[in-house]
Amino acid sequence: MPSPVGRSVGMIDADERVRGTVAYALNAELPGCLTGRILRSPHPHARLVRIDTARAEQLPGVIAILSRADIVDNPALYPYFGPVVRDQPVVALDKVRFVGDPVAAVAAVDDDTAQQALELIEVEYEPLPAVFDPEEALVPGAPILHETFPPQRGAMSADIVFNPSEGSNQLNHFKLRKGDVEAGFEQAHRIFEHTFRCPPVQHVPLEPHVAMALVEAGKVTVWSGTQTPHNIRAQLAEIFQLPLAQIRVIVHTLGGGYGSKCYTKLEPIGAVLAWKARRPVKIVLRREEDFLTVTKHQAVIHLRTGVDRDGRIVARKATNYFNAGAYADISPRLIKNGGYATAGPYRIPNVWVDSYAVYSNIVPAGAFRGYGVSQAAWAYESQMDMIAEALGYDPLEYRQMNVLHDGDTFATGEQVHDMHYRELLLADAQKAIDWRPGAEAWWQRASADGDRGAGSATVSHKRRGKAITCVIKGSVTPSTSSASCKLNEDGSLNVLTSSVEMGQGAKTVLAQLAAEAAGIPLEAITVSEPDTDSTPYDQQTSSSRTTYSMGTAVTLAVQDVKRQLVELAADQLEIGPDDLTCDEGTVRTRDGSRSLSYSDVVRRSRRGNLLGQGTFATSGGLDPETGQGIGSIHWHHAAAACEVEVDTETGKIEILRFHSSCFAGRVVNPRLAELQVEGSTLFGLGQSLFEEMLYDGGQLINANLSDYMIPSFKDLPGRLSVSVLEHPSAGEVHGIGETSVPPVMPCVANALYNAVGVRITELPLTPEKVLAGLARRSEAEA
Amino acid sequence: MPSPVGRSVGMIDADERVRGTVAYALNAELPGCLTGRILRSPHPHARLVRIDTARAEQLPGVIAILSRADIVDNPALYPYFGPVVRDQPVVALDKVRFVGDPVAAVAAVDDDTAQQALELIEVEYEPLPAVFDPEEALVPGAPILHETFPPQRGAMSADIVFNPSEGSNQLNHFKLRKGDVEAGFEQAHRIFEHTFRCPPVQHVPLEPHVAMALVEAGKVTVWSGTQTPHNIRAQLAEIFQLPLAQIRVIVHTLGGGYGSKCYTKLEPIGAVLAWKARRPVKIVLRREEDFLTVTKHQAVIHLRTGVDRDGRIVARKATNYFNAGAYADISPRLIKNGGYATAGPYRIPNVWVDSYAVYSNIVPAGAFRGYGVSQAAWAYESQMDMIAEALGYDPLEYRQMNVLHDGDTFATGEQVHDMHYRELLLADAQKAIDWRPGAEAWWQRASADGDRGAGSATVSHKRRGKAITCVIKGSVTPSTSSASCKLNEDGSLNVLTSSVEMGQGAKTVLAQLAAEAAGIPLEAITVSEPDTDSTPYDQQTSSSRTTYSMGTAVTLAVQDVKRQLVELAADQLEIGPDDLTCDEGTVRTRDGSRSLSYSDVVRRSRRGNLLGQGTFATSGGLDPETGQGIGSIHWHHAAAACEVEVDTETGKIEILRFHSSCFAGRVVNPRLAELQVEGSTLFGLGQSLFEEMLYDGGQLINANLSDYMIPSFKDLPGRLSVSVLEHPSAGEVHGIGETSVPPVMPCVANALYNAVGVRITELPLTPEKVLAGLARRSEAEA
Repeated sequence: MPSPVGRSVGMIDADERVRGTVAYALNAELPGCLTGRILRSPHPHARLVRIDTARAEQLPGVIAILSRADIVDNPALYPYFGPVVRDQPVVALDKVRFVGDPVAAVAAVDDDTAQQALELIEVEYEPLPAVFDPEEALVPGAPILHETFPPQRGAMSADIVFNPSEGSNQLNHFKLRKGDVEAGFEQAHRIFEHTFRCPPVQHVPLEPHVAMALVEAGKVTVWSGTQTPHNIRAQLAEIFQLPLAQIRVIVHTLGGGYGSKCYTKLEPIGAVLAWKARRPVKIVLRREEDFLTVTKHQAVIHLRTGVDRDGRIVARKATNYFNAGAYADISPRLIKNGGYATAGPYRIPNVWVDSYAVYSNIVPAGAFRGYGVSQAAWAYESQMDMIAEALGYDPLEYRQMNVLHDGDTFATGEQVHDMHYRELLLADAQKAIDWRPGAEAWWQRASADGDRGAGSATVSHKRRGKAITCVIKGSVTPSTSSASCKLNEDGSLNVLTSSVEMGQGAKTVLAQLAAEAAGIPLEAITVSEPDTDSTPYDQQTSSSRTTYSMGTAVTLAVQDVKRQLVELAADQLEIGPDDLTCDEGTVRTRDGSRSLSYSDVVRRSRRGNLLGQGTFATSGGLDPETGQGIGSIHWHHAAAACEVEVDTETGKIEILRFHSSCFAGRVVNPRLAELQVEGSTLFGLGQSLFEEMLYDGGQLINANLSDYMIPSFKDLPGRLSVSVLEHPSAGEVHGIGETSVPPVMPCVANALYNAVGVRITELPLTPEKVLAGLARRSEAEA
Repeated sequence: MPSPVGRSVGMIDADERVRGTVAYALNAELPGCLTGRILRSPHPHARLVRIDTARAEQLPGVIAILSRADIVDNPALYPYFGPVVRDQPVVALDKVRFVGDPVAAVAAVDDDTAQQALELIEVEYEPLPAVFDPEEALVPGAPILHETFPPQRGAMSADIVFNPSEGSNQLNHFKLRKGDVEAGFEQAHRIFEHTFRCPPVQHVPLEPHVAMALVEAGKVTVWSGTQTPHNIRAQLAEIFQLPLAQIRVIVHTLGGGYGSKCYTKLEPIGAVLAWKARRPVKIVLRREEDFLTVTKHQAVIHLRTGVDRDGRIVARKATNYFNAGAYADISPRLIKNGGYATAGPYRIPNVWVDSYAVYSNIVPAGAFRGYGVSQAAWAYESQMDMIAEALGYDPLEYRQMNVLHDGDTFATGEQVHDMHYRELLLADAQKAIDWRPGAEAWWQRASADGDRGAGSATVSHKRRGKAITCVIKGSVTPSTSSASCKLNEDGSLNVLTSSVEMGQGAKTVLAQLAAEAAGIPLEAITVSEPDTDSTPYDQQTSSSRTTYSMGTAVTLAVQDVKRQLVELAADQLEIGPDDLTCDEGTVRTRDGSRSLSYSDVVRRSRRGNLLGQGTFATSGGLDPETGQGIGSIHWHHAAAACEVEVDTETGKIEILRFHSSCFAGRVVNPRLAELQVEGSTLFGLGQSLFEEMLYDGGQLINANLSDYMIPSFKDLPGRLSVSVLEHPSAGEVHGIGETSVPPVMPCVANALYNAVGVRITELPLTPEKVLAGLARRSEAEA
């Protein structure tokens, strides 16, 4: 039987998806289920003076209204949640901290009634001064969002050092200290210093946040569109003060996640509302509420880079401000990834990073495809082209000169292995866009080619430019995945994992790995959805970790079953287990003379089924004072290359060609891997060109998909290509779910610069900014 | 921590049950779910000439109509099911075999539409001669129900010898041959020969049969109120020709089962209808349809018993005819249990049993609480009193003389152990009804006591009588149960089993056993419902096997986790595993100097959870030619005692006192155990007094709960008491779910005889039969 791994088999649930019948939590139903709606703060920062729900409670059809009165001083409930620090209340207690902060929730027999009830709840606020910018939020005298932290329950995540500043908005501070950065700068021939900014953006999964909850007989059951069922379970166990076994989190397929569905979001308010209503409650967010739930981190990155006479980077100092918004969510950890990433995939002997998570009065920021690395890469890959230009290098050549190779040392002090930047950049990216090596800057080429960029402009007011970028990204470390499996009497296999299928093909890929390990056809395998009562522990479906981490756990579980098969068959055939092989659905004597199918072995054993288990835990972590240690079990790497055409009259950037290439170790399903890279690229293009959450005094003013643009078919590159680089030497699969997002934005910005000489350091690259840049250039030239 | 075993803790789901919110399949919902309805045959036996669904298909709202056209010659479907022999088609193919046999099914948007569509389906039948009585069905020339059997798929159950007679209605024949029965009769001082009959009756669970199905993307998911999820899975895998892993059977709590929900019932028609509709379909039977789905076996038992001069039974020959109805269901196995049981709990050196399952044109019979033993006990316990009277023995004394004691040999040749009849009969039953020892028959006492029975009649036309009976019952053997468990990071435990909760308290009892094995509080444990994708194999929830068989599997699974806890803690504490103890949620060094909580161990291990598994398989089985071997891993035994008052003017029997006692080995939850025995007793009282499915030419004429009576509160005994006998020596738990049904019916009949001298040999003991008996007595005396 040829291995099912490495084949582009169709997604297991393709038929259901195409027919629109796949089971989303969005569509889940329960008998007697109520509709939940949330009343939200209209103020970015205010003290909560009074809440009166009396009139709303009178409304026929209203079953329960949840407000702080239900949870303050209620010994049955611990009212806070948050994956690192419990700083977010189920509903606002003393004050509200952003426009959209939940203040109360209604459970009613239908949506209209719930909506009407929201309008009948009277809330009196005392507005407080607010702050929205992370750097301003750190200025002494800035309004403080969290004067104190509530008493914490439960353990912090082992890999997060959490050091909030009392009486400050500084939520956390990640430090990286490699080499002697001051000495590095002293040695430097030239020093480059720039600041880069990127705005908060939205994940926009097609399925909004949804949670349905039932609290009954000492047991809490939640159906949630979450990427982190076990985290939800732990947080609900804290809130309800119940054993983990009494919290059941069931996750159907998600209609997209992209990080937005990591960690507790709707589940606490939904479950506590169901507890009060004593009936099941389902909450589905409107799109505008999704905008008010979680975002990518706005960031400001100050980057100081010193290079030697040959252009080699000798020192880098980065100061990163990640705007956490009103609550911590995963910011305390994200600034670590977004911190060490600022060194980029380059050999830099001396690195100093201060990466800050800062509270402010905007929507909380959380995990977002790229996880801090996009913000860092936006800075360092923009700056790489700026340095290359200043030093007179071709940007590609300049990257090759500095990029990490096997045996080099990354910013975290780790020696890196299995590095393939040369291949990604040269063999792949360069070829895909016909990159013409050479160090000419855009204006040099413009004159040399008769006003043509690296390509050729079709009409005189359009200019073309190209760029190539590359990035490095880690995966959450340490990390634990556990899987089990059940070999049935007919030799078919049920694989149980808590990995979340969200359109990325997790089920399909895990089935392929199980099929390979078991030696049985893919059709004889089912992979579960998460149900924390029955599927084993998994840390999270995020961080591009599932194929590698859960894939390994599944393989171990199948091997556990095969070990049992061999032991049982040895008894049944009266032969030593070492004289047996186990593959292709059959246990055979090594001499080939006798064999039993898996089915024969299970039936003869009279055990009904064989149960296997596997757990895969990686170790690692960084020293809190130096950021040195093991940052990631694998280092994901990707490159991007593009050609743009810039309309100098409208400022509009058109992407003519875009190529993303990503290293994947061993590829389980080439087509699905390519689709991941394609999807990441489109994510990056939206963020490059127009995605941006716009606030006016803390009020989000484009919280809908008319005013907030995501890429449509019309925004696709003229030619979009991807390559997923497989390396036989790798052996192991590497995650690729998000590695191709971060290189996109600087690639487009660098190509823009290459085309028209306009350098933009704040995303997105809007026509207005391009035109303003062109105007500045004209002024400077004039 | 005191063991949670042996405590009458409340049912885990008591709150949900009381509030009516417990999740029954009846209430399950799926988005876009259609209503399924079944068109049924009006003829007891007919050839199917033509089915025209065209008009029905035109009806707006009708999505799919399933008839034989969809499944005949369809290579995608194997159209038969049945737990032993696949003789029952999904819908009728060539002919119909009972009034109610499914002919077609409609899936429509609502119930009214489905009902209307049924009326628009045109069916042309060619009526065939029918046969309803099992003995008549075996007469040469009787109409044959199954001329041939379809080609069989899959394995027969290992413990069933299946030997149908070609061209006959004889479905199966169980033989038991112990000793030399003819020689026994030759030695006998007296021989007693009687025939006993009992009618088909209904199980009447409050929740009717229900199945909801979804067939999509090569996977079949069925929500069913079934006691046998793994059997359903296997049968659907055959029908759809899919691997077992692609069939998912989910079972919520059942609103009662009593055997009626064993093996495939609605699931095939529901799933194939959903397959055709390409949408989920839910079928809920009306009560009258439940009557047409499965029944207890009507039976005729000819019993010939020889006794020696001292009254010791020396030979017994039984010829049992069990009316299987139109399809085999589990009849081929049931006649085995109903066969060997005919020897009763008595030492009989020579036993010959022929037990037949016979097809006839009535509703198929299947598992029913008591499983064949009720029919057998009805015969042998009635006859025991008849023999005792004839020999001049007190019935209790006569039973004690013959009953099995430790070391005796049962009819199957097994030496029995742990027999407690003496205690059940003497210490318990006798005391409960103030049984007055002595051999006087009713009329002797009547004269001696001045026309008073064993008690005293309140008015002259009422007579009182007493009786004591006892039975033996096996549990399905061989048998396999598998369980797994998941110890969470906080030391709480999720137990996964496929045992079905149907109000009997399975979840509670399994949680108690898990809590004891783990040494953690009951509140930290959750027990799953069956989901064949994730919960391990279990043979069935029936045969009073769950507490013992699954309880043992659960204990083994917990022990597996404890073994891992000790191993991990040994590493963590750097000590040998043998120097550690593991209990009360803590791993401790034997010297008590150091300890880690389970939670500490799991957290330190960084495995996320520990997964344990346990499988418990019993062996045994009977030789097909002699019925000798191992019939049951445990022999369940029970006794009943009652006092009745008979109104000689109306013929009505009133139960003044009823006591049931049952041996339970080790009792896990005394209150739940008592409730099982109480419930069994009421089951038996209904069957004693009035339960009976009445047919007129194959037409069931009382298929509703107005005409078919089950006991109401007014029918309760004046005093109902139970005792669950625990024996420290037993160690193991014994099943008690149904053992107390079979002794009831003969107990009431014997008490009736004791009161008024009327012997009725055909159930139920209706006033009409009592009056007719009294009239016959008067005539005889006159």
